[in-house]
Amino acid sequence: MTNTSLPIVLIVGTNRPSSMSAKIAGYYQKVLTSLGQPSIILDLINLPHDFTVSALYENTGKNETFNGLRSLLEETNRFVFIVPEYNGSYPGVLKAFIDGLPYPNSFNNKKAALVGLSSNAQGATIALSHLNDVFSYLGMNTLALRVKLAQIRMHFDGADITNPLYKELIALQAQQLLSF
Amino acid sequence: MTNTSLPIVLIVGTNRPSSMSAKIAGYYQKVLTSLGQPSIILDLINLPHDFTVSALYENTGKNETFNGLRSLLEETNRFVFIVPEYNGSYPGVLKAFIDGLPYPNSFNNKKAALVGLSSNAQGATIALSHLNDVFSYLGMNTLALRVKLAQIRMHFDGADITNPLYKELIALQAQQLLSF
Amino acid sequence: MTNTSLPIVLIVGTNRPSSMSAKIAGYYQKVLTSLGQPSIILDLINLPHDFTVSALYENTGKNETFNGLRSLLEETNRFVFIVPEYNGSYPGVLKAFIDGLPYPNSFNNKKAALVGLSSNAQGATIALSHLNDVFSYLGMNTLALRVKLAQIRMHFDGADITNPLYKELIALQAQQLLSF
Amino acid sequence: MTNTSLPIVLIVGTNRPSSMSAKIAGYYQKVLTSLGQPSIILDLINLPHDFTVSALYENTGKNETFNGLRSLLEETNRFVFIVPEYNGSYPGVLKAFIDGLPYPNSFNNKKAALVGLSSNAQGATIALSHLNDVFSYLGMNTLALRVKLAQIRMHFDGADITNPLYKELIALQAQQLLSF
Repeated sequence: MTNTSLPIVLIVGTNRPSSMSAKIAGYYQKVLTSLGQPSIILDLINLPHDFTVSALYENTGKNETFNGLRSLLEETNRFVFIVPEYNGSYPGVLKAFIDGLPYPNSFNNKKAALVGLSSNAQGATIALSHLNDVFSYLGMNTLALRVKLAQIRMHFDGADITNPLYKELIALQAQQLLSF
Repeated sequence: MTNTSLPIVLIVGTNRPSSMSAKIAGYYQKVLTSLGQPSIILDLINLPHDFTVSALYENTGKNETFNGLRSLLEETNRFVFIVPEYNGSYPGVLKAFIDGLPYPNSFNNKKAALVGLSSNAQGATIALSHLNDVFSYLGMNTLALRVKLAQIRMHFDGADITNPLYKELIALQAQQLLSF
Repeated sequence: MTNTSLPIVLIVGTNRPSSMSAKIAGYYQKVLTSLGQPSIILDLINLPHDFTVSALYENTGKNETFNGLRSLLEETNRFVFIVPEYNGSYPGVLKAFIDGLPYPNSFNNKKAALVGLSSNAQGATIALSHLNDVFSYLGMNTLALRVKLAQIRMHFDGADITNPLYKELIALQAQQLLSF
Repeated sequence: MTNTSLPIVLIVGTNRPSSMSAKIAGYYQKVLTSLGQPSIILDLINLPHDFTVSALYENTGKNETFNGLRSLLEETNRFVFIVPEYNGSYPGVLKAFIDGLPYPNSFNNKKAALVGLSSNAQGATIALSHLNDVFSYLGMNTLALRVKLAQIRMHFDGADITNPLYKELIALQAQQLLSF
């Protein structure tokens, strides 16, 4: 049984400044709040600039800023990943962040919901498939319902998602995550 | 028709120091040399330490060290990617490098051969499938023959690949790339 | 909360006569029995020979033998799929069986464990990734732990799995499915 | 060097009667004709109704109708696959057809272009990714350019594709296939 008293961690899957993914994470957080569920946003923009060197391989565990972000993962057992499509897959930065996590990893036996977004018509479909393979490898169960927010710029007005179907899918996924 | 006078660029798909991937790239280069084919190795260890910030998004094109690596891509039309399996997929650093390349991208209408390596028994099978999706998105044709070097530590003696099948597959792929 | 009084349905993912997949399903069933969990085996060898015509498209729902198999799916909320690797993916017959199921589909909001087997060294890794995408589309949650039985002919003596790691992984997955 | 005097085989990737895929194959054939390229359409509707039993496993090679279709594959070295999205992947029937082909397979060292179609907004993106993995396994090179015809019912008037971008992508892919 999931310990539902822990906050859910929403991961902004890019380090792009002022990313659309961060805005969607903010929207998702409001949905969780309305369901009485505490949550924390972990935005990859806070990664140390040199983390691909200072926090990987023989430096695993040695970068305190990176360790601070990582410790957020260890305080929870449920995640929402907000994943923009970059070059037909997930952002390299998101995967490099995962590659810097030590074993036994921070995701094993935990649970995740996946949200994809794209400017094009496909909603990061392939990116979420790839990421699901990574999480399977890491032992994290993911919800079957992958929310795909295609053509996101047409469906977000700066503060709110304007597409009713998108809102409905996020609400449904959030509810599923609470009882997953 | 491929311009075969250009060197092939071998990309070491990780920035790990003294990586097995770099050693395999060295082996592959010798194979190409024996076929009379010039080549260049681009090892991602040479990426600027802060490239995920200084060479992406609004900084695309502004990091001179990154631009120097990128310019190697523009001098060729054929690539070999040496890809270790990290967490069930390709290394995040490899994808972040690709994410830093400007449009029109350096891979469009070019050709690639994919080599995967892993300590486990699967030879980065899934990593190469994911990477193939990325290259399809970028318009780069990839050879059907994906070379999968499973349990690579058992089959490399520090200087040479010791598994005859692995040697045969690399030789076959190299020949296919020359006539692709 | 999963209704654990229902039997688990083990699906033999091929219609090959005397398949290795059927033998593995038999082994898996014994594991479930030892855990006190009732189960049923649905072997695709029982599909009507002409089901790709008589049970699909405008004939959906019209083939009584097919409907009989389908009704087994509706009596449960948890599945184990035993999936051999055919031509680098799942068997076409397994997917054609799924393509014959009517909407709302028999898998929505249910749970599945995936087992792959292959003669080669890869254990149907790619096949399970593809199948996971199908189940995500259909709304069925799958366990992150995908059991991959590579080189299965070397690790099955006709009656029993002889590889201790394979036995351990199956036992672990079965336990996870019971509490999923 | 490709023998360009051979016809291209267009494969309708479903056995659905009067399929949209068959219509798109007809359109694609007209494009090839306009480029002076002969072609043949192989529609899976012509598969024997019981082929999943009478042409697979111990019956491989024994069904004359199936063998007749198969012989078309052996007369060419280039293919176009027209692939509808069924349940988030390629049709099971298409894969079962492939599963019935003998070794050495009819696709090794040949070339293919992939076209996906769907009623939804995604254009069979995932289906084409999965199919590309199958063809990689079988040794068939596929063009990077995967044509994705999303919401096809809105963009086909019964006789012609009405979406200019779709027409342009098909024309581009056809030209690429001729020089692949």
